[in-house]
Amino acid sequence: VASLFEQEIQEQPGALRRLLAEGEAEAEAIGQAVRRFAPRYLMLAARGSSDNAARYAQYLFGAENRLAVALAAPSLFTHYGAPPRLEGALVVGVSQSGQSPDVVEVVREGRRQGALTVAVSNDRNSPLAQAAEHNLWLRAGAEQAVAATKTYTTQLLGLAMLSVAVAAREDRRRGLGAVPEQVERTIALVRAAAPGAARLLAPHGRLAVLGRGYNLATAFEAALKVKETSYVSAEPYSTADFLHGPIATLDRTLPLVLVAASAPFAPEMRELAARARAVGAPLVAITDQADLAHGADASLDIAPGAPEWLTPFSAAAAAQVLALELCRARGLDPDAPRGLRKVTLTR
Amino acid sequence: VASLFEQEIQEQPGALRRLLAEGEAEAEAIGQAVRRFAPRYLMLAARGSSDNAARYAQYLFGAENRLAVALAAPSLFTHYGAPPRLEGALVVGVSQSGQSPDVVEVVREGRRQGALTVAVSNDRNSPLAQAAEHNLWLRAGAEQAVAATKTYTTQLLGLAMLSVAVAAREDRRRGLGAVPEQVERTIALVRAAAPGAARLLAPHGRLAVLGRGYNLATAFEAALKVKETSYVSAEPYSTADFLHGPIATLDRTLPLVLVAASAPFAPEMRELAARARAVGAPLVAITDQADLAHGADASLDIAPGAPEWLTPFSAAAAAQVLALELCRARGLDPDAPRGLRKVTLTR
Repeated sequence: VASLFEQEIQEQPGALRRLLAEGEAEAEAIGQAVRRFAPRYLMLAARGSSDNAARYAQYLFGAENRLAVALAAPSLFTHYGAPPRLEGALVVGVSQSGQSPDVVEVVREGRRQGALTVAVSNDRNSPLAQAAEHNLWLRAGAEQAVAATKTYTTQLLGLAMLSVAVAAREDRRRGLGAVPEQVERTIALVRAAAPGAARLLAPHGRLAVLGRGYNLATAFEAALKVKETSYVSAEPYSTADFLHGPIATLDRTLPLVLVAASAPFAPEMRELAARARAVGAPLVAITDQADLAHGADASLDIAPGAPEWLTPFSAAAAAQVLALELCRARGLDPDAPRGLRKVTLTR
Repeated sequence: VASLFEQEIQEQPGALRRLLAEGEAEAEAIGQAVRRFAPRYLMLAARGSSDNAARYAQYLFGAENRLAVALAAPSLFTHYGAPPRLEGALVVGVSQSGQSPDVVEVVREGRRQGALTVAVSNDRNSPLAQAAEHNLWLRAGAEQAVAATKTYTTQLLGLAMLSVAVAAREDRRRGLGAVPEQVERTIALVRAAAPGAARLLAPHGRLAVLGRGYNLATAFEAALKVKETSYVSAEPYSTADFLHGPIATLDRTLPLVLVAASAPFAPEMRELAARARAVGAPLVAITDQADLAHGADASLDIAPGAPEWLTPFSAAAAAQVLALELCRARGLDPDAPRGLRKVTLTR
C-alpha cells in the first residue's frame, strides 16, 4: 500500500491542473486590484513549507514584477506589538491551513493599515482567508500526510498565477499551462534513479542542499521534506552563502544535493560539484543540465525544456520523491513523523 | 599562545567603545538624512556574518523605527539583471570587507534609482563605501581570523546606532553606552562554563541553535561560527520555524543550543527545553533566565540587566567563546578553517 505521502506526490499534476482551470478568474481579479493599487513593495508572511513558497515569490515578483519583496518577521506583529508601517504595501499571507495565528496577524495588521491584502490558502474559510481582502483558494483537496507536497506546489502555482496576472503577460500565462505535465513527467523520470540516490545518502545523519535564484526555494523545501520524513539534518543554502563560511563543513561525511535547474548558475554549481568530488563528499544532482547529471554520483533528472522560472515545480517534485526513498532506505514511515502534527499554530 | 580568533573575541569591548565614541557623528548625520528622506521601507544587502547582523536590523528597525525590512536577494541584481524598483527605499549594504560584488551592486543600483544608500563596513575606502552616498565606518581594526567576531558585533552596534539616530531617542542612545561593558562581563562570565558545554557538544557532528526575535540573529551567527571553526552541521532556526517541521529531527543525537536572552520568548524556550529533555537531546542554554540556565545540561550566562534589544551583543560573545571551546575540544585550529578565505567574492 502506498503511503499518504506517496499518494499525494502523485496527485500533484491533477491538483495543478485544477488550480489552473478553476483559479484563473480569482487570480485575474487580484491582478487587476494589484495593478490599480500600484504597491511600493510586497510583504509575504508564511511559516514552514509555505515560507519556502514565499521564497520562490521573492525571486518571481522581484524579477518579473520588479517588486521589492520582504519576508515578514511575524513576531514583530505578535510578540513585540510593534508592527512596521505597511501603507502602500501588498501583503500576502501564504498558509496551507490558513490557521497559524502569526501569519493571520500580519495580514490583519496590513488590512488595518490600508495595505492591499491577499490570502493564498488551501482552506477558503480559514481565518487567513477571512482576514484578507482577496483570496486565492488553492483547491488542492485535503492533504493528509504531515509533510506538505501538493499544497506546496499549488502554492508555487498560485503565486505564479498572481505574478502573471499582475504583469498581464500572455506569454508567461501560456508557460504556466505546461507545468502539470512537466511535474508528471518528472515524477515518472526520477522514479528509477531515486532509490539509488537515497542509498547513497542514507548512511549519513546530515546533508546540505544547495540552490540558487528561483531554486533557492527548492533547496529549502527539499531540506525540510528530508528533515520531516527522515530526521536527517538537511541544511539548505544558497551556493553564495555556502561559500561565505559553511563550506568549511564539507567533507566525505557531508553529502551534497545540488538543485541545478536551468543555465544561469551552472558554472557555480560545477565549481561546487568539483569541490565535493575533491573531498569525497557524496554528490546528488537534481538537474536538467547533462554535464552536472553525469558528474554526480547519482542524478534525478527533471523534465527538460522548462524556462528557469518554471523549474521549481519539477525540481520540488523530484526532491519529494528523493525524500520518500530516503525515508524508505532508513526504514521509517513517512506518514508518521515524530513530533509533528499537520497544523502547527505559532504566535 | 592565544589564537587570532580568541584575541579578536577579547578585542571586542575596545572595538565597541571606539565605534561608540568616534562613529557617533557619522551615525547622527545619517540619521538626519534618513529622517529627511522618510523611506517607505528598508532593504538590507549582506552575506555571511553580515547577513546575520542584517537579521538583527530587521527586528530593530521593524520594532523601533516601524520600518518594513527586506533582506535583498542579491542575484536579482547580478544574475537576472532584473532589480526591483527601489524608489523611496533606504538601501543599506553591510559587509566587513566592503568587497563582495553582489552586495556592492545592490547599493549601486539603489543609488542609481534614487534610493537613500548607506554602507556599513570596516573599510572606509572599500567599493561598498564608495558606492553608497553615506558611510558608517566600523573602526574595528584589521580582523585577521577568518571567522568574524569583532566585525560582527561592531556591525550590530553600527546598525543600532543608526536605528537610534533615525529615531532620535536619547534614552536608547544611553542604553548603547552600556554595551561594551556587558560584552566584557559576559566574556569573563562564560569562560569557566564554556569548556564543559563544548565537551557535551563535541561528540556530535550536528546540532541545532534556536533563537527568536532579536536573538534569531544570534542563533544564525552562533551556528555559522560553529560551522566555520568546528565543521559541525549547526543549523539555526527560529523556534517557531523549528516547530513547523524540523522538530522531527530532534533526538539524543541532535544537541540543542537555546539562545534565550530576555523574557518575551521564555515560555516557548521552556517548552523546547522540555521536549529536548524528554528525548535525551543534550541541551546548552545561552541565557539570562535563571530557570532556563538551571534546566540545561550546561549554561553560558550572559551579563544580566540588558534590555532585550541589547542582549544580542552579549549573546553573540558567549556563542563565540562556545565555538572557540568546541573547536578546541574537537582538536582543530580556529585560525585555519578549511576551504575558506577571509574575503569571499560572490556574484
